[in-house]
Amino acid sequence: MTQRVLTGITTTGTLHLGNYVGAVRRAIAASRAPGVESFFFMADYHALIKCDEPDRIEASRLQIAATWLAAGLDTSRVVFYRQSDIPEIPELTWLLTCVTSKGQMNRAHAYKASVDANLAAGEDADAGVTMGLYSYPILMAADILMFNAHRVPVGKDQVQHIEMARDVAQRFNHLFGRGEDFFVLPEASIDEEMELLPGLDGRKMSKSYDNVIPLFEGGSKALKDAIARIVTDSKLPGEPKEPEGSHLVQIYDAFATPAQREAFRAALRAGLAWGEAKQQLFELIEAEIGPMRARYDALMAEPERIETILMEGAARARALAAPLLQRLREAVGLRRFQPLQAKAAPQAKAKSALPVFKQYREADGQFYFKLNAADGGLLLQSQGFAQGREAGQWVARLKKEGVAALAQAPVQRAEGVAEVQLHEALQALQAAESQD
Amino acid sequence: MTQRVLTGITTTGTLHLGNYVGAVRRAIAASRAPGVESFFFMADYHALIKCDEPDRIEASRLQIAATWLAAGLDTSRVVFYRQSDIPEIPELTWLLTCVTSKGQMNRAHAYKASVDANLAAGEDADAGVTMGLYSYPILMAADILMFNAHRVPVGKDQVQHIEMARDVAQRFNHLFGRGEDFFVLPEASIDEEMELLPGLDGRKMSKSYDNVIPLFEGGSKALKDAIARIVTDSKLPGEPKEPEGSHLVQIYDAFATPAQREAFRAALRAGLAWGEAKQQLFELIEAEIGPMRARYDALMAEPERIETILMEGAARARALAAPLLQRLREAVGLRRFQPLQAKAAPQAKAKSALPVFKQYREADGQFYFKLNAADGGLLLQSQGFAQGREAGQWVARLKKEGVAALAQAPVQRAEGVAEVQLHEALQALQAAESQD
Repeated sequence: MTQRVLTGITTTGTLHLGNYVGAVRRAIAASRAPGVESFFFMADYHALIKCDEPDRIEASRLQIAATWLAAGLDTSRVVFYRQSDIPEIPELTWLLTCVTSKGQMNRAHAYKASVDANLAAGEDADAGVTMGLYSYPILMAADILMFNAHRVPVGKDQVQHIEMARDVAQRFNHLFGRGEDFFVLPEASIDEEMELLPGLDGRKMSKSYDNVIPLFEGGSKALKDAIARIVTDSKLPGEPKEPEGSHLVQIYDAFATPAQREAFRAALRAGLAWGEAKQQLFELIEAEIGPMRARYDALMAEPERIETILMEGAARARALAAPLLQRLREAVGLRRFQPLQAKAAPQAKAKSALPVFKQYREADGQFYFKLNAADGGLLLQSQGFAQGREAGQWVARLKKEGVAALAQAPVQRAEGVAEVQLHEALQALQAAESQD
Repeated sequence: MTQRVLTGITTTGTLHLGNYVGAVRRAIAASRAPGVESFFFMADYHALIKCDEPDRIEASRLQIAATWLAAGLDTSRVVFYRQSDIPEIPELTWLLTCVTSKGQMNRAHAYKASVDANLAAGEDADAGVTMGLYSYPILMAADILMFNAHRVPVGKDQVQHIEMARDVAQRFNHLFGRGEDFFVLPEASIDEEMELLPGLDGRKMSKSYDNVIPLFEGGSKALKDAIARIVTDSKLPGEPKEPEGSHLVQIYDAFATPAQREAFRAALRAGLAWGEAKQQLFELIEAEIGPMRARYDALMAEPERIETILMEGAARARALAAPLLQRLREAVGLRRFQPLQAKAAPQAKAKSALPVFKQYREADGQFYFKLNAADGGLLLQSQGFAQGREAGQWVARLKKEGVAALAQAPVQRAEGVAEVQLHEALQALQAAESQD
């Protein structure tokens, strides 16, 4: 029932408290859930699209890797790597590029937004648009499909890209699969209740609004100074204050237990001064962030430690990526040279003569199998199983016992398939099995 | 003075006699010229754009590799490899994708032709266009720039792609070079007198006209049969025949010495029968092709030998590609983690404070150097030198002796540069030199 969840981390700039609450803390908590195998990667090939300042890219990769590690990412549980350490990804990108229609890229929201802005400004539609911006959904598809991720947590603006990844995966499976699916079809998971931390002025915390509270940069002093600048109403000490609607309270909530939240509200209603409230907020955040900051500073002082961690992650990632890429290369025809006849004949025969059982996992985490005819048409479809082993055992029984096992098997005949077709297919498999 | 020449070989289909005369034989002869370092690669990533039949890709790669080897490609002199064995190429493709403007791809002839055809048919402009077709000029730029080829022999329809490669190379050098050029600007070389062999019917020999003479396929019998089908006039044996304008004679010429050409013409004018002329043509071609066909058949029977040859070629190619890619990764910011301050400070200072000498080679094969100011402006330009060593010695002298060496140096002050600017720059370099 293990689900692979893949999270890409942008590597331009540094992170603020809003990123921590809205992304880092949540993703790390989610990676600790049972039954989840998490992949976290630094999307540094993507960063090159937007940023041609090498020193900024370098600094951001290091700072952001240190941030995630300091915040508690457990690299014994998750696979944590830099995209640019996986040469299989650009190669897969090219394989996918060859099966992606240009029309699909034309419909990508990010590209269309650039075109609309250009046209509104009286410019050429593609003014200032690089091929990186235009084709990055293909790179993103490669990021996801390379590891056959089931689920990709994304913002709403990214859902379309996951659909594109599904689409290109399906096209590739269809064109080259010959009864075998190379790629899981990934699903976007959008967290509707995603916490957006307000900034100093009450709007969403964002660098573009210049209203951020720093995460680690500048130490506890910078945190305290930023909190002091949170905008409140001008009620005096002693005057009762309404907690609901105050964004200072909202920020407090993001770090507090239910009991702390209640006590804070009561104190404000009883006239707690804003200055004192800010001191309490600072102490609350510092209690969570302080120990992380110490780890962050220690990591930043020893970049080689982070380098080692990420290279270990890359080795684990490549151990999965390389064999899959090898299968894909075989499938499209990039094969080691061997005699043409000797090879073509038996393989073509085996492929065309026999029906094929396929086992797979769906996004619901359950295991399934199906039986396809030699021509690829669906004959039989199983129910879902909690354990992959169960599905495998049924496949083995059906292969060995054939029609005899059919009555007890938790399967359904596909629409439009006659019983005799099914029986012939199972008999053919049974005969092949007994020859081996 | 060594010039790097790069030739891509399409790997869909097999080759006919016209391909042999127009491409294979010429390119192999050119690779034997002194002062040339040739790179030949099987463009199998490109083949994936046009062909989704894996078995055809597989067969074509093998047959075409065997053809070039049988025709005399000397892999001790040239670097012969499969594009898909060089993972540095797709990675470089992505780095270049990020600095390529979409507008430039819109102007590519091959893409525009597809759009025009779609619009004429009342279809959507991008109907049936894949991202592979649209963006392959970037892959082609990576093919060329990965090995810093000076010259790329191409047909006229490909000249635009070489210009695109120059353009993206220039942009990359400019954005990330910091006074260092990563890429040579490649030049297209178009052979105006490129021999186009006529086919059976007198039109250009082409599979799409169904008028080809096979190269190796079908053995000498297929060659003879095809020659028998060459269209001639209906003059009888004994009647004088006009050789000029006969495409049979044109094909004969492609394999004959001047003396043979003359004798053949004289015989036709004296009444040689077309049947006998065809027999002579067959014998002439077979004398050249026969021994190659024997080598081809031997190679095709031992694909592992070709595999070994190509893997050796890939190793030689990667020995060049990997260090360059490493420099490019450093340049864009994909660097091994190291302490940020320790690194940023001295480098930034050294870069900004000093003028820079740059040595490079132009497409004319000569070595040059120039002196750029700290802000990148050109100060000094050398003449061309036959030996790189000479250019290096002048740079060393100018660095050490400064203004004193200027009078004798074979250099020219750049336009608009005052003598005092030049003197200051040389003094700054001299001072830095004496500190080292």
